[in-house]
This record gives sequence, C-alpha cells and structure tokens, in this order.
Amino acid sequence: MSSVDRRKQIVEAATKSFSMFGYKATTMDQVARIANVGKGTIYTFFSNKEELFDEILHVVIGEMKRITELEVREDKAFFDNLYSGLDSVLEFRKEHELLIKLSQEVREFGTPQAREAMQRVEVAILDYLEQQVTRAANLGEIRKVDPKVTSLVMLKLYITLASDWNKLYEPLDKEQIKSYFKLFLADGLANG
Amino acid sequence: MSSVDRRKQIVEAATKSFSMFGYKATTMDQVARIANVGKGTIYTFFSNKEELFDEILHVVIGEMKRITELEVREDKAFFDNLYSGLDSVLEFRKEHELLIKLSQEVREFGTPQAREAMQRVEVAILDYLEQQVTRAANLGEIRKVDPKVTSLVMLKLYITLASDWNKLYEPLDKEQIKSYFKLFLADGLANG
Repeated sequence: MSSVDRRKQIVEAATKSFSMFGYKATTMDQVARIANVGKGTIYTFFSNKEELFDEILHVVIGEMKRITELEVREDKAFFDNLYSGLDSVLEFRKEHELLIKLSQEVREFGTPQAREAMQRVEVAILDYLEQQVTRAANLGEIRKVDPKVTSLVMLKLYITLASDWNKLYEPLDKEQIKSYFKLFLADGLANG
Repeated sequence: MSSVDRRKQIVEAATKSFSMFGYKATTMDQVARIANVGKGTIYTFFSNKEELFDEILHVVIGEMKRITELEVREDKAFFDNLYSGLDSVLEFRKEHELLIKLSQEVREFGTPQAREAMQRVEVAILDYLEQQVTRAANLGEIRKVDPKVTSLVMLKLYITLASDWNKLYEPLDKEQIKSYFKLFLADGLANG
C-alpha cells in the first residue's frame, strides 16, 4: 500500500472513531485498531491526536463550504441565496455524524477540544455569511451594516426559528421559517 | 417563633443552599442545618425538595417580573420600553445567584430539574414580551405579527448582541446593543 493510501486509511479510521466515541474517548490505539495498522505507522503521519483531529475538522469544514456554495445562484435575490445557503449549511451540521457527536460531547461533558471544534465550525459559517453580506451591501441590495454583527444575527435568527422554537412549540415548516426569516431580517417590524 | 416565621426561615435557608450548591447537591438535611431547625420541621411545610425548590423559583420569577415592570413607562415608545425591559430582566437573570448556579449546573451536569427551572424563567420572560408585542400590535405601533414567534426572536436577538457576540469579539456597549436591536428588529435590512 502506498504512503498516501495508508494516510487516507488512518484519517478515515480516526473520523470513524471521533464520530462514534467523541474526542475524549478516542485514542491512538483505537485508531490503529480500526485502521488495521500499527500505532507506530500513525505517528509517521501525525504526531498526536490533536493533529489528527485538526486535519479531520479541516476536511469537514471544507466539505461544508462546498455544499453551501452549490446553493448560491447569481440570478437569485440576496435573501433567497442567503436562506438556502444557511438552510443547507445547518442541515449539514445537524446531520454530520462527527458534528453531532462533538456537540453532544460539549453538552454532556463540556470537553474543551470539542467545544473549540464546534466554535471553528461556527466561525466558518460566519465567514461565509460575512462574504455574502459584504457583497450584498456593496451591490446596494441591503443597507450598509457591520457585516460581523449582521452575520451573527442572521445565524442566530435562523437557529431561533429552526431549532430553539421547537423546544417550546410545534416546529415551524420550511416555508414559515423562510417567511419569518425575511420578515425580521429584511422588512423589520416598524409599521409603515 | 411563629409558624410563618419558621416557614420563611426554611425558604431562606433553602434559597442559600440551592444558590451555593445547586439543585442536585442540596439535601433536606443541609437545609435543616442552615435554617437551624429539625428536618421534621421542614416536612411540616414542604413534602419534599421538589416542592421547596418550586416555591423558591416561583418567588424568583415574581421578583423578576416586578423589576421589569418598573422599567416600562407609558409615555415611552414601544422599542424603548421593550429594550429597557429586556435589559433589566436579563441583567437580573445574569446577576441572580440562584439563576447563575442553576445555569452553571445545566452546563456542567445537565441536571434535568435545573434545566427545567431555567426554561420556566425563559417562559416567564417570553410571556412578558408577548404581552408587550400584542399591546404594541393592537396600538398599531408595530405590524400585526405572531406574538410568540416575535417574542422568541426578540429575546434571542438581545442575547445574540449582549452575550453570544462576546464569545467571539470585543463586547458591544449598551448604546451599540440598543441601536442594533432597533436596526434589526424595527427597521430591517432591506434597502429603501
């Protein structure tokens, strides 16, 4: 087996282990077992668990970005692009095995490395939103606003409607979420 | 000592214990020790820890409501009242010893009773907001909107600006928070 293939095999095994057992419970021994290689082989590619985890997270964030970009179409209005981009990125986060496990680990054990990883995912989403907001403001599609504040508000508004709401009431459907998202963000509550 | 006084003494001791040690680590023995009464005396007033906790939470939520109402003035505009009401209620939640301890307990151990208590506090805040939103919509100060969705969005927007933001960037000052709150909620981002 080539060195490239062996490296890939290790990364895949580690992804499995982190997704199944979380950050804390994953050991280099376990990864070696799943990859069916000696522990020494792993150390020829990665000097420790942190480095392996870092690479995997980098890959996941890259995937997430690509998926979001697929949704953006030049011929659609800013708020439609924004909405479908956010929808797909949060769907991705919700369904991705590793991210599910890590957010559960944060909730249950407060593992710092898992918390930091989830924050890196959030920052990647915010970066994407910031680009969209800056572009829309430059094109005059929305007011000139601070893109960092606006991005965080957008992300949290979406989470409020699609997730926080469900802890208290019957879930809203996709069309309702979309129309409230636009109501609060684009139009505002002021009367007239 | 009268029965009323003794009951009060027990409630105060229990409040101290829940605030210092959290829900799970508080026992009836401990409350009896702090109150300087026999454990049997407590049971003449409260049949178990849950009942005692329930009464204390009820008192805290009552205090919180009174504080918020102090901030509302008939001669101020809806968004100013809303902002100062939210500001004072969240300040109260942030500084109240028992609520600090409970939210820490949720974060660290996920204790269900502490989680439920924090949710009751949130529901009380949402009830208050709902009344304000309904009143403002009836007076034509804001559009006709679903008061439940709007209340949750308001609360989460405030928390985004005053707390979530600080995990990523330098805190905004009170004037910035207020102006962003109004920008996003009242005016919207749509250009023109």
